[in-house]
Amino acid sequence: MHLISEYIRGAVREVFSTMLSMEALCREDISDEAGHPVKISGVTGSISFTGKMNGMVYLTMSPSMARAVTGSILGLKQAEVGDEEIGDVVGELTNMVTGNLKSKMTDQGYNCTLSIPTVLMGNEILVESSQSNIKTYNEFRITGQTEPVGVYVFARLEGT
Amino acid sequence: MHLISEYIRGAVREVFSTMLSMEALCREDISDEAGHPVKISGVTGSISFTGKMNGMVYLTMSPSMARAVTGSILGLKQAEVGDEEIGDVVGELTNMVTGNLKSKMTDQGYNCTLSIPTVLMGNEILVESSQSNIKTYNEFRITGQTEPVGVYVFARLEGT
Repeated sequence: MHLISEYIRGAVREVFSTMLSMEALCREDISDEAGHPVKISGVTGSISFTGKMNGMVYLTMSPSMARAVTGSILGLKQAEVGDEEIGDVVGELTNMVTGNLKSKMTDQGYNCTLSIPTVLMGNEILVESSQSNIKTYNEFRITGQTEPVGVYVFARLEGT
Repeated sequence: MHLISEYIRGAVREVFSTMLSMEALCREDISDEAGHPVKISGVTGSISFTGKMNGMVYLTMSPSMARAVTGSILGLKQAEVGDEEIGDVVGELTNMVTGNLKSKMTDQGYNCTLSIPTVLMGNEILVESSQSNIKTYNEFRITGQTEPVGVYVFARLEGT
């Protein structure tokens, strides 16, 4: 398992516990290596990092899961949750997970700066990142939820 | 028209002229303000920038246009062009356009660092960037091509 996967697992666990009081359990029965290109569907928060670690984090979940999470964080009924709220919450969750990863990677000497988040909504989006040699995928089961949350990291570490 | 649009227009013109010997003419009959969220389809190169200018560039075109451009740059017949080549070329074109914008913005005091490119392929992808207050769209007609090339910039300038 790549060190980045270890950090992502800790980050997702921490963020879901703090923000949602939900337990995020990583699936251990699949490899943490992402194929390439990957195909994402649903609601996906994305943040880039530049510096000694270069690349991208994609935090992805189904539209219904995104709605449930958004309602829970904002204290809204699901019918009151629109795309704008979903975008804000998924962007912020991605920001917290990526910020956590950044902090751990900085401790390892891979300083980096984060971009502002962008949120993509759509189906079967093919993502190509040919300049990154590290490609990880970790999938999480969230207690009380039937659908998973997935996190892709495409990265290149300088000096490795 | 936003200064960023002016720079993007110059950048696209220069990159298409240098790399493809094609003239890229910007449509003047539409506003350079992008709606929000925007919907993108086809092949889209994306690069983030962080620093005094924060945000994202999306350079987008239809799959057939991406194939034509890739074949032209790599000197391949269109039947020989696969998704991997398309991803590489569209990523590199986005890199050149964004690098050109970065250089002009640095001259204006908005230093920034670019991420590595990612290429998205898919239809009707909704893109939300709620943290950027500048949202521009410029669309280009390319000589000899029936389909346009579009460039979105979502940005936030620090200290403004």
